[in-house]
Amino acid sequence: MKKIEARLLKGFRDFLPSDMLLRNEVIRIIRNVFETHGFLPLETPTLEHLDILSGKYGEEGDKLIFKFRDQGERDVAMRYDLTVPLARVIAQYRDIIKPFKRYQIQPVWRADKPQKGRFREFYQCDVDVLGTASVTADAEIISVIYHSLKALGFEEFLIKINHRKLLNALLKFAELGDDAILPLCRSIDKLDKIGIEDVKNELTSRGFRSEQTEKIFEVLSPGLGDGGFSLDETEKLLGAIPEGAEAINDLKEIISYITSMGVGGDFISFDLSLARGLDYYTGAVFETFVSKPKIGSITGGGRYDELVGMFINEEIPAVGTSLGLERIIDVVKEHELIAVPRTVTRALFANFGGSAGMEAMKIMSGLRSDGIQCEIYPEAIKLGKQFKYADKLGIPFVIIIGDDELAKSEAMVKNMRTGDQTGIKISELSVYILKYKD
Amino acid sequence: MKKIEARLLKGFRDFLPSDMLLRNEVIRIIRNVFETHGFLPLETPTLEHLDILSGKYGEEGDKLIFKFRDQGERDVAMRYDLTVPLARVIAQYRDIIKPFKRYQIQPVWRADKPQKGRFREFYQCDVDVLGTASVTADAEIISVIYHSLKALGFEEFLIKINHRKLLNALLKFAELGDDAILPLCRSIDKLDKIGIEDVKNELTSRGFRSEQTEKIFEVLSPGLGDGGFSLDETEKLLGAIPEGAEAINDLKEIISYITSMGVGGDFISFDLSLARGLDYYTGAVFETFVSKPKIGSITGGGRYDELVGMFINEEIPAVGTSLGLERIIDVVKEHELIAVPRTVTRALFANFGGSAGMEAMKIMSGLRSDGIQCEIYPEAIKLGKQFKYADKLGIPFVIIIGDDELAKSEAMVKNMRTGDQTGIKISELSVYILKYKD
Repeated sequence: MKKIEARLLKGFRDFLPSDMLLRNEVIRIIRNVFETHGFLPLETPTLEHLDILSGKYGEEGDKLIFKFRDQGERDVAMRYDLTVPLARVIAQYRDIIKPFKRYQIQPVWRADKPQKGRFREFYQCDVDVLGTASVTADAEIISVIYHSLKALGFEEFLIKINHRKLLNALLKFAELGDDAILPLCRSIDKLDKIGIEDVKNELTSRGFRSEQTEKIFEVLSPGLGDGGFSLDETEKLLGAIPEGAEAINDLKEIISYITSMGVGGDFISFDLSLARGLDYYTGAVFETFVSKPKIGSITGGGRYDELVGMFINEEIPAVGTSLGLERIIDVVKEHELIAVPRTVTRALFANFGGSAGMEAMKIMSGLRSDGIQCEIYPEAIKLGKQFKYADKLGIPFVIIIGDDELAKSEAMVKNMRTGDQTGIKISELSVYILKYKD
Repeated sequence: MKKIEARLLKGFRDFLPSDMLLRNEVIRIIRNVFETHGFLPLETPTLEHLDILSGKYGEEGDKLIFKFRDQGERDVAMRYDLTVPLARVIAQYRDIIKPFKRYQIQPVWRADKPQKGRFREFYQCDVDVLGTASVTADAEIISVIYHSLKALGFEEFLIKINHRKLLNALLKFAELGDDAILPLCRSIDKLDKIGIEDVKNELTSRGFRSEQTEKIFEVLSPGLGDGGFSLDETEKLLGAIPEGAEAINDLKEIISYITSMGVGGDFISFDLSLARGLDYYTGAVFETFVSKPKIGSITGGGRYDELVGMFINEEIPAVGTSLGLERIIDVVKEHELIAVPRTVTRALFANFGGSAGMEAMKIMSGLRSDGIQCEIYPEAIKLGKQFKYADKLGIPFVIIIGDDELAKSEAMVKNMRTGDQTGIKISELSVYILKYKD
C-alpha cells in the first residue's frame, strides 16, 4: 500500500514535548499575572460566521482570513484575532456584568505568507476591559503588559504609547479632514520599515497635498530622531486643538496611574509615530518592543470604543492588548530566561517482569499518589537499555526493585546525574525523591 | 449602518468565565494525573493536509471531517481527533525517543448533526504510549483513566475492556473470514442503541449467513444479560483459537497489572460486546461509562499497532485513550463534584479618584506582588455601585482607602459575605486576605 507522506502544511507547527514544556510554563506565568490583575478566562469558537469577522481588520487583514463554505453551505471563518470575537460575545450576552475584564489564550489563523517568525497558526494572549471609558482601564492593561514581561524575566523592553486622537489633531493641524485618519495611520505605521521619504511619497499617492505632508512632518520629525518624542513638545503644537488636548490629558492620566501600579518609567515611552495598523482604535494605543532579538512588536493594543457598536445599538467602550506568545517565547529562548527540563518524569521504575515487576507497579502507584511523576519501563528488557531511556529523556532517578531489594523492603535508587546508587526504605521513597532538587 | 447580528454557528459554543473556571480546573486535575503517569505534552496544528486524515476514521467518520481548499489551493482538513495527528508526528520525527508517552489536550472538529451533548467543536484529552507492544502500556492507559476520574471525584464509573483479537476469534468460531471484522465491529458497536434483533438483521444485510450470526450470538448472548461477560467462559469457547488465546492472555495480564497500579476491581469489567467503531484498533479496546447522567462513553481507546504504518515502512505499536472533556464536565456538573468561584478576584479596591485613588493603586500593586488577585474599580463612582459590582461577581473583599484611612495607614476591609468591616494596617493587608479561606 502506498504510504502517505507524514508532513505539515506550510506555516503550521507541531509542538513536541520540549517545546510544550516551555510554552506551558510561559502561559502559566502570563495567566498568573492576568489573574492577579482580576481578569477572567474566556474562550470563543474556532469558527465564526464570516460576517462577524469581515470588515473589521482593514483591507489587508480581510484578505488573510481563512474562510470557507462548510458542509451546510454556510460561509464560515477561522478566528483571526481575539478582539472581534470578544466584541461579538459582549454584544450577544447582554447580562455580562460590566466592567467585564476577560483574558483569552487561544490560537488564531492568518493566511499570510509564512516566513521566519511568521506563522499561519499562532497563539495570542489577550486581556481586555469592556464597559468603561475610564483610562484607569488603559492603565490596568499597560500594568498587565509590564508585569507579565517582568514575571517572565524580561530585563529590557519598551512599551510605546500614543493616542489616536493626537493623530486626529495632527490631521486638523495639517488642515486635513477626519477621513484622512486611516490612510495616515496605515502610512506612518510603516515609518520603521520604509522610512520618512517613502512614507511622504505614500501620503502623496494617497492624495495628501505636499504642504499637508510637510505640516505633518513638522510635528513628527523632531521626535523621529534619537531623542524621541516629548509629550510637552507635542502639547505645545497640538494642545490647542480640542482632540489634542483630550488625548494629552488621557496620556498624562495613564502615565500617573501606571506609575502608581508599579510600572517602571524606563519601560514606557510616548511615541507620536505609533499608529497601529488596525482600523478600530479610538483612543490610546500601545505596542511593546525589545531590541534583541530583532522582531516586530511583542504586544499590541489600545482603546476601541466603537467596535461593539458594529453589532448592537449601544456603545460599550473597550480597551485591551494582545501579547504575542510566539514572539515572547522567541525572546525567552534568546535570553534563556526560563529553564525547563526535558521531561516531567522524576523517576523511572526498572521493569524486571513477573512478580517483581508487579511489586514495582504497586510502589509506583504509591509514589503517584504522593504527586510524584513516575513511570515503569514497559518491557522487562536488559537493565542497560532501561537506563539509557532514562538518560536520554533526562529522568533524574531510576528505581530498581529486584528480589534482593524486596527481601529488605528497600529500593535501590540510582541518581542519573551523579551515578550514585543508594538503598532507600520503600516507605521513605517518596520523601527521598520529593526532597531532591535539581 | 446595518448591525451584524452577534450569533454563533450551530454546534459551536462560547465558554464564559463561569464555564472556563470549571473547565480549567478539570483540565488542571486531568493534566496532573497525566503528568504523574509520566506523559509529556504535545500539540499539533488545527489544519493538516487532507490526505493525512482521510481514510482513517471509517466511512462514516470520513464524511464528518471539516475540509476545504485553502487560499493556496491546498486540500486541508481540521483536526478530527488527536490520534491520527500523533501517528503522523511519530512517523515524521524519527528521532523521538521511544517508548514515547505523550498527552494532548486540544479541540477537535466534526461536521456532525449538533444535538444535546454533541457539538461540532469539542475538546479531547488524549494519552498514548508509542513504540512498545507490551501490555504494561495498556495497563498504564487504564490506570490514567481510573486515576483521572477518581481525582475528579467520580464515585461510580465502569471501564469496559475487550480485545479485537477476541472478535477475530469469534469470526473464526462462526466460520467467517478476517475481512468480516469491520462489519462485525460496526454492528455490535450498536448493540446498546438498537438491540440484539436489529444487530442480527444488520449482520444479515451485511452478508452474514444466519447460522454464522447464530454462532456469534451463541458466544455473545450469555454475557448480554445482567450477569455480564465472564473471561473464563469466553476462554472456554474461544481459547482454542490461537487469536482467542492470545487475547485472553493479554487481558489477564492487563488486569493483573492495573490491579498492581491501584485500579479498583469494581471499576473494570470485561465486555465481549465492546467493539469500538473505529477501524484502526488491533488489540485491547476500552471505554468508560457512567450511569448518571445518561450519556455515551466518557473515554474510548485501545491498541492500534498498525496506524503509524500508514505513513512509514516501520511498525510502531501504540496504545492510548481519549478522555471526552465535554462529557466528563457534564458528569462533574451533574454530581456537583467541583465547586468553582464565580471570579478569581479576591479583593476589589474602591476607587475614590484623585490622590486617594492613586494610593489605592499603589497598595493594590503590592498585593498583586504577593500573588493576590485584585483590581480597582475603574471609575470613581458612588461607593454603593462599586459594592454592587463586587457583590454580583462574588468578590469576597472590598478594600476602602479614603483620606481618613490613609491618615492612619489603614484600610477598611469589608467582608462581602458577612458584611463586617475591619480596619487593617496597610502593611498587614496581604496577610489578612491570604489567610481568609472561603
